[in-house]
Amino acid sequence: MKKLGEIYSSRIESALEEFYDRYSHLPSLYSPTQYILSLGGKRIRPALVLMAAESFGGSIDKAIDAALAIEVFHNFTLVHDDIMDHASMRRGRETVHKRWDENTAILSGDVMMIQAYELFEHYDKKTFKAVIKVFNSVARYVCEGQQMDMDFEKESDVTMARYLRMIELKTAVLLGGALAIGAIVADASAKDVDNLYDFGRYVGIAFQLRDDYLDTYGDASTFGKRIGGDIVEGKKTFLHIYTKDHCENIAEFDKAYAIEDEEERIERVRELFTAKGADVAICAEIERFTSKALKCVERMPFSGDIKERYRQLAMALGGRTK
Amino acid sequence: MKKLGEIYSSRIESALEEFYDRYSHLPSLYSPTQYILSLGGKRIRPALVLMAAESFGGSIDKAIDAALAIEVFHNFTLVHDDIMDHASMRRGRETVHKRWDENTAILSGDVMMIQAYELFEHYDKKTFKAVIKVFNSVARYVCEGQQMDMDFEKESDVTMARYLRMIELKTAVLLGGALAIGAIVADASAKDVDNLYDFGRYVGIAFQLRDDYLDTYGDASTFGKRIGGDIVEGKKTFLHIYTKDHCENIAEFDKAYAIEDEEERIERVRELFTAKGADVAICAEIERFTSKALKCVERMPFSGDIKERYRQLAMALGGRTK
Repeated sequence: MKKLGEIYSSRIESALEEFYDRYSHLPSLYSPTQYILSLGGKRIRPALVLMAAESFGGSIDKAIDAALAIEVFHNFTLVHDDIMDHASMRRGRETVHKRWDENTAILSGDVMMIQAYELFEHYDKKTFKAVIKVFNSVARYVCEGQQMDMDFEKESDVTMARYLRMIELKTAVLLGGALAIGAIVADASAKDVDNLYDFGRYVGIAFQLRDDYLDTYGDASTFGKRIGGDIVEGKKTFLHIYTKDHCENIAEFDKAYAIEDEEERIERVRELFTAKGADVAICAEIERFTSKALKCVERMPFSGDIKERYRQLAMALGGRTK
Repeated sequence: MKKLGEIYSSRIESALEEFYDRYSHLPSLYSPTQYILSLGGKRIRPALVLMAAESFGGSIDKAIDAALAIEVFHNFTLVHDDIMDHASMRRGRETVHKRWDENTAILSGDVMMIQAYELFEHYDKKTFKAVIKVFNSVARYVCEGQQMDMDFEKESDVTMARYLRMIELKTAVLLGGALAIGAIVADASAKDVDNLYDFGRYVGIAFQLRDDYLDTYGDASTFGKRIGGDIVEGKKTFLHIYTKDHCENIAEFDKAYAIEDEEERIERVRELFTAKGADVAICAEIERFTSKALKCVERMPFSGDIKERYRQLAMALGGRTK
């Protein structure tokens, strides 16, 4: 994945610099938008827009505004999600609502959503309507996914089907939407746009499941977050739901989560996950969604070289758990 | 103004009912959106969309989605503004963040903005792009106006020019935008669209200034809010800024605002406003913006009857202070 980011990163960063310059007239509103966007990140989503556009023979110049729109929207969700999660740090820096305050974070987030829509204004009216329709549905899905995620915190029985739907909405559709929008900008057919959307969606689900897996079974030195964080928070992830579904004795499950010492609790819950086969099951699920994505690649109307890039993307984002 | 609301209200309410039905699949997210929209209000903004469309020979059927989009957007701003203002009541009922919680209010507000954009999807691509461009700029202005309003709370020297710009952005442009969007939907020329936008903007400024006037000089039995509320909050309104600008001795001004007893403070500050001529000045300013609006009416390409409706609208919303 790093490779994808690298290919387009200089173009994305320079376009962002130009974007910041357009909003210098009210720093109290726009400084936080520049701040969050400047924290970096892997720029996967805008790179997907550019990659899709290029695959269909479109130019980066033409696709760059759509790429920024997706990145600005993604960062809007980070600003508002960080408020909702009471998160104080993001990418090693203070979150917007910590550095400024909640009101600023709410309003700057709001204006970022509008900025995202404004970025599409350069497209001709046919392209404009087509991309905004995809963008609208994806943006709404992301909100629905976030709401489901918050709902799950209060619910005791989250089914696997609803969990998979939640990660699809919250995370995966934006990857699909980024690819679809890049394809639309390059005048791809509706069938090809849909196929790219599905590819991104499947890869996104696999990506999120892999994140779940690594949160419990990963290597602290490469994962970047504390191993076992989901267990400590009692998050209803795939591993959690699968294990609970396969416990004959639910008291055993509750007991493991009730252990006071955090490290001991992580250890004990992880053992229980493994004993119930949740680790094997999640890897199979990741493989399943990665296979679906690879089947989409077969249907893409590209040369072997370009198809290979999509295959590598699927493997890099979701494919491997080791 | 009440008359305008009455003319279109049954159509607006029934369209809202249909709108609610489209979002029944995730009540935790969409119930708050229905709740805030159901609190009522005068529906001035959607009525303006319909009035403008009708004036240009467009049908209400065609304009109704655009009207709802404006109302949904307006209600999104209420949900987020109420969080920022720590307001617990709205239209005699609990605000969304009080009835649910802040996270719900943030996310439901976010999704309402997206719903507003989705409501435009029924328009053909030419109309779609034209209305979204107006909507984007108006939506961004509203955020900028809200930010300026929050900034003013922390600033000691707010100039009159910036105050007028703030109320223009926060309140007036959405009235102008509603009329402009209604006109676009009915295929009005760019010149006529701009003229309607300006009419709405001038009326909106006059309307907000009149609200400032009535907050201090109004009749409690008809105003609907506590008289003197702005004074108690120390709000930098037209009256406040004008009086401060015309005080030879600023200590006199500060002293009036420092009076402990609220009723006495209101009384004393009001006397000071009047002594410095702020009441006369604000009425002159209201007249000035109402005159500008009436000049726009002269330029409208309508029959005398229709022009008369716009004149009445200008007088009802901004024209009179008694």
